[in-house]
Amino acid sequence: MTALKIGLIGTGYMGKCHALAWNSVAPVFGDVERPHLAVLAEASKELAEKKARELGFARATGDWRSLVEDPAVDVVSITTPNAFHPEMAIAALEAGKHVWCEKPMAVRLDDAERMREAARVSTRVAVLGYNYIQNPVIRLIRRILDEGQIGEVNHVRLEMDEDFMANPEDLFYWKSEASSGHGALDDFGVHPLSILRVLLGGVRRVCGHMTKPYADRPLQGGGRRAVETYDIATVLMELENGASGLIALNRSAWGRKGRIFLQIFGARGSVVYDQERMNEVQLYTADGTKETQGFRTILTGPQHPPYDKFIPAPGHGLGFNDLKIIECRELIRRIAGEEAYILDFEDGIRIERTVDAIARSAHEDRWIDVGADERRAAA
Amino acid sequence: MTALKIGLIGTGYMGKCHALAWNSVAPVFGDVERPHLAVLAEASKELAEKKARELGFARATGDWRSLVEDPAVDVVSITTPNAFHPEMAIAALEAGKHVWCEKPMAVRLDDAERMREAARVSTRVAVLGYNYIQNPVIRLIRRILDEGQIGEVNHVRLEMDEDFMANPEDLFYWKSEASSGHGALDDFGVHPLSILRVLLGGVRRVCGHMTKPYADRPLQGGGRRAVETYDIATVLMELENGASGLIALNRSAWGRKGRIFLQIFGARGSVVYDQERMNEVQLYTADGTKETQGFRTILTGPQHPPYDKFIPAPGHGLGFNDLKIIECRELIRRIAGEEAYILDFEDGIRIERTVDAIARSAHEDRWIDVGADERRAAA
Amino acid sequence: MTALKIGLIGTGYMGKCHALAWNSVAPVFGDVERPHLAVLAEASKELAEKKARELGFARATGDWRSLVEDPAVDVVSITTPNAFHPEMAIAALEAGKHVWCEKPMAVRLDDAERMREAARVSTRVAVLGYNYIQNPVIRLIRRILDEGQIGEVNHVRLEMDEDFMANPEDLFYWKSEASSGHGALDDFGVHPLSILRVLLGGVRRVCGHMTKPYADRPLQGGGRRAVETYDIATVLMELENGASGLIALNRSAWGRKGRIFLQIFGARGSVVYDQERMNEVQLYTADGTKETQGFRTILTGPQHPPYDKFIPAPGHGLGFNDLKIIECRELIRRIAGEEAYILDFEDGIRIERTVDAIARSAHEDRWIDVGADERRAAA
Amino acid sequence: MTALKIGLIGTGYMGKCHALAWNSVAPVFGDVERPHLAVLAEASKELAEKKARELGFARATGDWRSLVEDPAVDVVSITTPNAFHPEMAIAALEAGKHVWCEKPMAVRLDDAERMREAARVSTRVAVLGYNYIQNPVIRLIRRILDEGQIGEVNHVRLEMDEDFMANPEDLFYWKSEASSGHGALDDFGVHPLSILRVLLGGVRRVCGHMTKPYADRPLQGGGRRAVETYDIATVLMELENGASGLIALNRSAWGRKGRIFLQIFGARGSVVYDQERMNEVQLYTADGTKETQGFRTILTGPQHPPYDKFIPAPGHGLGFNDLKIIECRELIRRIAGEEAYILDFEDGIRIERTVDAIARSAHEDRWIDVGADERRAAA
Repeated sequence: MTALKIGLIGTGYMGKCHALAWNSVAPVFGDVERPHLAVLAEASKELAEKKARELGFARATGDWRSLVEDPAVDVVSITTPNAFHPEMAIAALEAGKHVWCEKPMAVRLDDAERMREAARVSTRVAVLGYNYIQNPVIRLIRRILDEGQIGEVNHVRLEMDEDFMANPEDLFYWKSEASSGHGALDDFGVHPLSILRVLLGGVRRVCGHMTKPYADRPLQGGGRRAVETYDIATVLMELENGASGLIALNRSAWGRKGRIFLQIFGARGSVVYDQERMNEVQLYTADGTKETQGFRTILTGPQHPPYDKFIPAPGHGLGFNDLKIIECRELIRRIAGEEAYILDFEDGIRIERTVDAIARSAHEDRWIDVGADERRAAA
Repeated sequence: MTALKIGLIGTGYMGKCHALAWNSVAPVFGDVERPHLAVLAEASKELAEKKARELGFARATGDWRSLVEDPAVDVVSITTPNAFHPEMAIAALEAGKHVWCEKPMAVRLDDAERMREAARVSTRVAVLGYNYIQNPVIRLIRRILDEGQIGEVNHVRLEMDEDFMANPEDLFYWKSEASSGHGALDDFGVHPLSILRVLLGGVRRVCGHMTKPYADRPLQGGGRRAVETYDIATVLMELENGASGLIALNRSAWGRKGRIFLQIFGARGSVVYDQERMNEVQLYTADGTKETQGFRTILTGPQHPPYDKFIPAPGHGLGFNDLKIIECRELIRRIAGEEAYILDFEDGIRIERTVDAIARSAHEDRWIDVGADERRAAA
Repeated sequence: MTALKIGLIGTGYMGKCHALAWNSVAPVFGDVERPHLAVLAEASKELAEKKARELGFARATGDWRSLVEDPAVDVVSITTPNAFHPEMAIAALEAGKHVWCEKPMAVRLDDAERMREAARVSTRVAVLGYNYIQNPVIRLIRRILDEGQIGEVNHVRLEMDEDFMANPEDLFYWKSEASSGHGALDDFGVHPLSILRVLLGGVRRVCGHMTKPYADRPLQGGGRRAVETYDIATVLMELENGASGLIALNRSAWGRKGRIFLQIFGARGSVVYDQERMNEVQLYTADGTKETQGFRTILTGPQHPPYDKFIPAPGHGLGFNDLKIIECRELIRRIAGEEAYILDFEDGIRIERTVDAIARSAHEDRWIDVGADERRAAA
Repeated sequence: MTALKIGLIGTGYMGKCHALAWNSVAPVFGDVERPHLAVLAEASKELAEKKARELGFARATGDWRSLVEDPAVDVVSITTPNAFHPEMAIAALEAGKHVWCEKPMAVRLDDAERMREAARVSTRVAVLGYNYIQNPVIRLIRRILDEGQIGEVNHVRLEMDEDFMANPEDLFYWKSEASSGHGALDDFGVHPLSILRVLLGGVRRVCGHMTKPYADRPLQGGGRRAVETYDIATVLMELENGASGLIALNRSAWGRKGRIFLQIFGARGSVVYDQERMNEVQLYTADGTKETQGFRTILTGPQHPPYDKFIPAPGHGLGFNDLKIIECRELIRRIAGEEAYILDFEDGIRIERTVDAIARSAHEDRWIDVGADERRAAA
């Protein structure tokens, strides 16, 4: 395969993360052609040029449309605010580019459906930046489940908590506006849903609940404005595989910084994982003598691919940015027509519909059948 | 106060625990008259005599009715299976005895209501064995909340998990029979509810869900029998104080042995507690420089009364049985007419009604207003 | 066996702990005759009477000599400051009593040697209060080692840290006087040595180092006084079984409350234990697939005797005071002529000689051969 | 500053790590000119060309001497086995190149002294790859110490343990040959010494001990060969600042994968750190009310620079490879003549001399004064 030519739109948190991945994927994996960092687009030409220099892109533009149409570009990394995803992703696909779009797909479900439709009619690859699933730990858990090491799964609990909205005296900003979405649910609830998806499959029914820990927040110039989004969400659910479960999300959870806490219970054992200790996983199996049973804290190492591509020694630790490099390798695999472990727009729309069902459930105060929605949508 | 004269009914798990408490409450606290262990009742006279000798009781009987009517008894410890609680507690109260009854009050809500009615018309003390709340850690959390150290609480999560029902090939026994109750919900869900009660007060609305991880279990003689109770329960809730929350219960949770995991989130901090590490609590407050903020692991010590009555040095650890000794001291306080930290039948009926509302909610697949029930019941 | 008749000297930290054990050993274990709490001795008759009432002793005395000679006493619990141990223990043994003496044996080695001599010529039982070894976890570790689960042990590390001397502005008190002993080494270093003894046997050579973190401390009336004892000690050692190891002790270790941290490395695995989490032990074995190897956190339960005598459910937690109850049961076993797991004066003198060798090594700045000393002493 | 031109010798574990750092330092930091990856040297031309393609170097050579003399190279990364460091580093310095050499400096002390001498006479930068000190956590600890948050330090304990030599049945290989060095001491003991150096300064006196857990190991063709190096080392020490301490090293410690465990005790608090959880540090200070004191688990975040250059959100986790990127930035700073946080050959020789003193101490079974050696060497 010749070198892929890359276009990057956006250079914020995730934009830089994509750029780092494009820079490192070849030296880390050693089995792919070094991508050519062709064009970078930002809001202005000036910013674009500054960032292109920093991040190693050959050219810069203040016009993302010129980037998606540029024949010198094969793949477009879309890392702009969620509201821009639909327009950009659809344009890129229509221009015949592969798309690597950050999660979630869109603010509104119908926009996400349009994106998926564009991917369907296109012959190009359209994948999403669900990087947490790329942790070798999550792959290990998947293998543990597939091999039946903890037996048939009957219950799962997923929590995701951070504290960037925890201070009630922080100024009102766009994340508290209804136009930004539901709140914790779509802001980061999609991450646990992505993990759920790769480990346990689809969700059948949900009963959601959303609350506002703080009714209002101060405005810059004085006074206060009512908060419109929900910083806390909780969900009961039944999975398609018959297991029961719950999801709890809180972006005002003081002290939690990047916690995704996962507990999976099966007929022969349990698995527990905490993203804040992303190089560990806890496994309990009902094997051996009762006297010495206990949760095993497994530290990741070269025996958990592709950790070995980064470090030959165990227990030395991957970081958050390394997950994006792994994701990038999977994207390249998918583009090459190989089996790849990555979530595409088909997977993404399932996640979005689940989010939508949870939100409706919370507003209507009742259980909602996600599957029914799926079937309706599919009809 | 002269020495209390004690009658004990039942010598199983909790019966022995009560006996140890009655034996140790005076030497531990040093400020109460040593109780007189008067009479012990068991199913047979022989067993009663054997146990009386072991546990230090002066007399033994195979007839619990004679015990509750014995003028040589002031307080009756009731530690028999839940189904016997109503009859025994009501008889003891009617005989003018103080009652210390193990939790939960009863298998059926109407029986619990009758017990509470008996306590209302009696002039005696009627309390319940909710020992987990007696952990000095829980008192510390209460003080932390009362002092506003974590600000106004807006979200709470409570999990209780054990694995005594985790093996699907364990023989069918009475805990899988419908006559034993709902399952995890009343079997041990009442414990988190007791903690919730002392820390955050009442529950307003609930939405419950209950599942059976294993459809059937093997019978002694061969064949299998369908399981009738729910080993897993999950609950969304709104508290009377406005906070949202959830409860998750699982008595088939491999690897969990005595886990009660509590997470409380407030406007200025968070508290996290795990009963499996019952001498620790984690506190996060948004104080000081951001650079060194983090969850503090507080080890209990003499500064957390009544730990000091057990051990003068910090970090040396109380045990599960010590909690019952503390509860016993609180019971004596209540009998003496002093302010006491213990849950009585009034508190208990609130817990039972919440349990009942959760169970109905799960069966009817909808949110149920506990407060409305309360008001109806009160009417 | 008829009921043992107990005399208790001292009612401080450990005196109360002994009293609780004598009160609870029968109800907890159910297989011993309830001891008769006969006489309690304290510094004054008044204090003795007050404490006798609290702790359940029949009689009280201000004269410990009358207690040790009292025909109504079979066993003497000695829980006074270390300086009193030799006189009391020797008198009790000479009066034909069994002796249960708190650790360490004495402040000076020659006194300890005299105590051991008195025990040798006596026909009575003379044991020491090394309670930490009674933790079911330590027994489990012993079994793990005996069964070769971690292979031949080649290295061990032991740390014991508390912070009761950590504040340099706390007033000077007797623990900083040379007459009290060496410092951390004998004050609590004997505890790790007791654990080492039951798990791995004797020490062959040591190289010690002792320091004073604070040169002086404030005096009550003003001014400061030079500290004479060593709050920190570190030791390199070779064990008789060939393993290497180290011990580190610090009684001015801010934040450590009751930490005894043990790491044992063998040819097939490792064991790690922390007394601050006394109901857990970590075991790593090089078994199974490499992918899922890790340290297992084993929670104690009924499968770890005698935990089962206290609580039938696993993971519910024993406390510090429970260890003394177990020790008491072992003492009774020893008195009854049964195999018992408890350290007697013969074991104790080995510990004391190791302490002495470490202290001399630190003063002389060189390795010292404990075995040679032992042989010399034995000659 | 114009772009630095880079030469890399070696492409093993650390060679790849250097390459990743050179690739990422510009996009991560955004404030340095993107380095030009000029030449890569490997044992053969073929291997060099393959690796140059993978790692992004423009040219390749099978002759490292041509690389160090190449005018197209400004900085030489030396990542070959330790035995090659002296010759390569000295040649590079003599050719007027900056040198970034992996640790330790050399197998033999006199070679390290020659390297330092070469650095002294050169005008170029000569630094070492002590990457663990680059963890933002270590910088945070340094700030905590500098600001006196835990008061004057009086005691320190450092452990480093891995298990790559733990299996006694693994084949004999070069790490068990005397020509490779002392064993655990120089193989990785230099890492804790580097951390000690940046946090607490120099070592005054040491007393070392080294053992071989396994006397021999199997040979490929059958039979066994005696092990010549020491997989376990323990050290007592006095620091130049007056604190006491110990170091324990074990490369046959089953279950430990990348553990560097650090405990620092001061007059007002303590710090604890474990490299296996490299994004956390524990801090205890004797501040606030006693009731809520405890070790705080601080998760790294943007408030701990240069974490912010990698990820804007806290608690998301850096990885082992990120440390080398930070080190690379510091190297560039040093080359630019700016204040830099990195260990150079002057620091390195201090570490090497301490290693040498420990080894001699272990062989001679006595304390050795490192300072005296230093002064002798300096004379």
